[in-house]
Amino acid sequence: MAARVAYGLGLDFGTNSVRALLADVRDGREVATAVADYPSGQAGVILDKKDPAVARQHPGDYAVALTKCVKAALRQAAKLRGFKPERIVGIGVDTTASTPLPIDAHCQPLALRAPFRTNPQACAWLWKDHSSYAEAQEITELAQLERPEYVARCGGTYSSEWFWSKALHCLRVAPRVFRAAASWVELCDYIPALLTGCTDVAKLRRSICAAGHKAMFHRSYGLPAADFLMRLHPELARLRGRLYEEAYTADQVAGGLSSAWARKLGLVAGTPVAVGAIDAHLGAVGAGIKPGTLVKILGTSSCDMLVTPTSTKLADIPGVCGIVAGSILPGHYGIEAGQPAVGDLFNWWVGNFDGRPDAHERLTAAAQRLQPGESGLLALDWNNGNRSVLVDVRLTGLLVGQTLHTTPAEVYRTLLEATAFGARVIMARLEEFGARVRDVVTCGGIAEKNALLMQIYADVTGRPIKISRSAQTCALGAAICGTVAGGTKRGGHGSMAAAQKAMCGLKRTVYKPRRAAARVYDELFTCYGQLHDAFGGSGRGTAVDNVMKDLIGLRTRARRGT
Amino acid sequence: MAARVAYGLGLDFGTNSVRALLADVRDGREVATAVADYPSGQAGVILDKKDPAVARQHPGDYAVALTKCVKAALRQAAKLRGFKPERIVGIGVDTTASTPLPIDAHCQPLALRAPFRTNPQACAWLWKDHSSYAEAQEITELAQLERPEYVARCGGTYSSEWFWSKALHCLRVAPRVFRAAASWVELCDYIPALLTGCTDVAKLRRSICAAGHKAMFHRSYGLPAADFLMRLHPELARLRGRLYEEAYTADQVAGGLSSAWARKLGLVAGTPVAVGAIDAHLGAVGAGIKPGTLVKILGTSSCDMLVTPTSTKLADIPGVCGIVAGSILPGHYGIEAGQPAVGDLFNWWVGNFDGRPDAHERLTAAAQRLQPGESGLLALDWNNGNRSVLVDVRLTGLLVGQTLHTTPAEVYRTLLEATAFGARVIMARLEEFGARVRDVVTCGGIAEKNALLMQIYADVTGRPIKISRSAQTCALGAAICGTVAGGTKRGGHGSMAAAQKAMCGLKRTVYKPRRAAARVYDELFTCYGQLHDAFGGSGRGTAVDNVMKDLIGLRTRARRGT
Repeated sequence: MAARVAYGLGLDFGTNSVRALLADVRDGREVATAVADYPSGQAGVILDKKDPAVARQHPGDYAVALTKCVKAALRQAAKLRGFKPERIVGIGVDTTASTPLPIDAHCQPLALRAPFRTNPQACAWLWKDHSSYAEAQEITELAQLERPEYVARCGGTYSSEWFWSKALHCLRVAPRVFRAAASWVELCDYIPALLTGCTDVAKLRRSICAAGHKAMFHRSYGLPAADFLMRLHPELARLRGRLYEEAYTADQVAGGLSSAWARKLGLVAGTPVAVGAIDAHLGAVGAGIKPGTLVKILGTSSCDMLVTPTSTKLADIPGVCGIVAGSILPGHYGIEAGQPAVGDLFNWWVGNFDGRPDAHERLTAAAQRLQPGESGLLALDWNNGNRSVLVDVRLTGLLVGQTLHTTPAEVYRTLLEATAFGARVIMARLEEFGARVRDVVTCGGIAEKNALLMQIYADVTGRPIKISRSAQTCALGAAICGTVAGGTKRGGHGSMAAAQKAMCGLKRTVYKPRRAAARVYDELFTCYGQLHDAFGGSGRGTAVDNVMKDLIGLRTRARRGT
Repeated sequence: MAARVAYGLGLDFGTNSVRALLADVRDGREVATAVADYPSGQAGVILDKKDPAVARQHPGDYAVALTKCVKAALRQAAKLRGFKPERIVGIGVDTTASTPLPIDAHCQPLALRAPFRTNPQACAWLWKDHSSYAEAQEITELAQLERPEYVARCGGTYSSEWFWSKALHCLRVAPRVFRAAASWVELCDYIPALLTGCTDVAKLRRSICAAGHKAMFHRSYGLPAADFLMRLHPELARLRGRLYEEAYTADQVAGGLSSAWARKLGLVAGTPVAVGAIDAHLGAVGAGIKPGTLVKILGTSSCDMLVTPTSTKLADIPGVCGIVAGSILPGHYGIEAGQPAVGDLFNWWVGNFDGRPDAHERLTAAAQRLQPGESGLLALDWNNGNRSVLVDVRLTGLLVGQTLHTTPAEVYRTLLEATAFGARVIMARLEEFGARVRDVVTCGGIAEKNALLMQIYADVTGRPIKISRSAQTCALGAAICGTVAGGTKRGGHGSMAAAQKAMCGLKRTVYKPRRAAARVYDELFTCYGQLHDAFGGSGRGTAVDNVMKDLIGLRTRARRGT
């Protein structure tokens, strides 16, 4: 453990705001934190009235919000005994992804210079921009036909949210912007470049996390081959030559903080800035991810992160969003899976199907009183499609087992359980392909607030559910990267493992599987699996004629208490 | 047409009250009507706090309520020009069924005499009494094994609501009551016996409608054989000998009104009283049933009635509740099918999943604005099980297609549609076995009030939906039977067909299938059929993996207006 008082600075670039977090290298204590909103658009997002798929960010916003929140955090830290900016051993950065932006040869975003100042196509294409839907389909089809290995490690489908879809769509709808770009960078590459004063696009260090998960980059062959990109568009193939051939893990140094930025922020020039990474991935780091521990980042949706050592070969895992060596921890495969509706699913029900103002409290209280199986209901959690393991947005919700006595609270609990069954399907798939899941650490607002959900997750998955001590695991993960990039000589850590050991922690509450509940949920999960396969298409013609009767049987037993 | 001013009197014994209705023999005009509640129990039903399956009626209530409502109706009629009780050509009776009660040798209900006065087991066992659940199963199993013909015409399953289940259960739980009974009668047999002063159980005329639909009576072999009943219980076999060997259609005369009852009611002694029948069956008569016209009696549930001439052989129709020659019209097979939740299903949703006081109006208005297919939703209407054609109470509801934007109004419309698809399944089954359905006449409160539902039924079934002119088709049907029992000499009608022609009518509004909507519903019905077969067990392993995608396809087209 580092003996000197020292801090890591984490910068977390979200959809609507930036968070700065100062964490003590010795124990991870979060000594100062501040948030600043992006000034442009609606809550930081530039929309297009004509096309609801469009979502952009103005690159100028990043510098503005970053300055504001770092200075605010430093003002808080100034009150600490013995704090000095020199004690910041390194800076880490995480951002949303894929959020690519076109830049010039000097790493300047095109949207910051004439003639593109007011052009949204020259802005950053925010992760949730879906305007390149057709391009994603085109890329998926071509890859599946000619280079299945490109999409094998991202579940077989290339998304409209990702790098190449967006670049290709820009090329089609705004060729002038596309051609003016010396290169494109992910936001998590742009911020370190900005802070380190990088003015040569060739020297800009790219994140393996974004490259691997979003741009089909692979250590063995680099970016997709030029002849493959040529089939999509000759200019896309030419862009490849202006991108990168190497990418780096987030414990490595992107460069030292520039004098200009040091002055602007009140920090010390030369402070090491780590290579950036995607928010969910550093969130997993901040939650203490290690082999065998699945980190579930629970919000509107769920990101499920797992690592396995690269020393052991890992097969492609069908239906998992991405497997990239080094994307979470160096020396480990970073595996990402997820469920597209968790908090969103509960809010949909609570907000629409009860109607009374205290719906959430009442539904939760009533749902809590129910025993597993007692409602006789079962649901599929696909209201927003299925990411893992079916990778199919064209799936929808399903509810079965309702009688004339079924209540909104019973349905509410059933939806909680449905997301737990969905989580269990993911864990089963990971284990089936050799990635062990021993326990689960959850983080995000839902994890802290919804004890009923956490207990259901424990009972359904048969694994202890722990809660991350930090409520800001992404920013903490970034701060951890900063301490490793800073290194032991500056008072930081020598490795991610050492930094996590010192700086990550759990809340005291652990939700343990209860045997009786787990037994009922095992039976319900069998029915869930039948519905999953029958409707999801992975088991065409799966018989489901037992489902209603099995649910009635479980209901009868639950009500009798047997 | 009858030239003289004359009236039929219909008496309709419901679950909570009796209705008396005076109808003009010439045109069916309902000149007087009155309702009287049963005085005992909760809304006329005697319950058991320890067993929610129990539902009885006190036989003394029938005479009390009957007297009250007939006198009230006559007071109304007294204001008519030229009305005299002599002008009542006959009295018809319909009741709930199977509502059997134990009687002594003088046709006196046991519950009206010592020592059984306060004994609910000696009361009438109301149709919805389900306490004989185990006995129903026992009878079904024995019949399927040894005498499948007994249940072949009632869908293969003998119900806990029916005669033999109840008699056997009484024998087991109250053997003293059972042994004290000289015989058991259905309520629809008891009322005519009461009114005609029948005091010899051997002369009591039984309804073919109740006997055939509820007691496995068949013209060719009578009641179930003694050796069959012996296998259930020796005393049940002995009861057979104290029941009946013949049963009659409701156009026939049970007897003349007794002097005592004539005095009590203010009617004329000797007025012909028709043989009784089940309420739904005479409801079909009152709605103008004839070959090719399906009558749907829409309330909390739906009864679907059809007739075909007995001159043409009719096969057993699998999954149809009952086929009995003469149960609706003489010379015709009476066919009964049904859906166990219609109004109940809508009320369940409206009452629980919106929460605001004007839920019904708002949901209906919003549902009305939706196009077929627009919600992307599809439901199975099985919240209360499935009567026809699956005959399975252990089935439950299902909803599929929901997204994070699905609204309560969309679900509400989907439930309306689900009952229409269920109705179409029944019609398809009837036609498959040779019973043609050309058009549909609906009656009941829902039929008159819910125009949206009626239009959906037309669009889904592809048949014109008409509405019965009378709001009291059961009582009108009973009055019609009264006019036929009275006969032409007394100023009544010579046949049911003649009486119906004169006395039944339709409202002007006819809901016609709309081609564009029907096209969409045909596609939705294909998906409904898949879910029906897959979950109902009639098509084990039916593939359903297309369902969610087909619904999304329909939704997309509906929203585009293509």
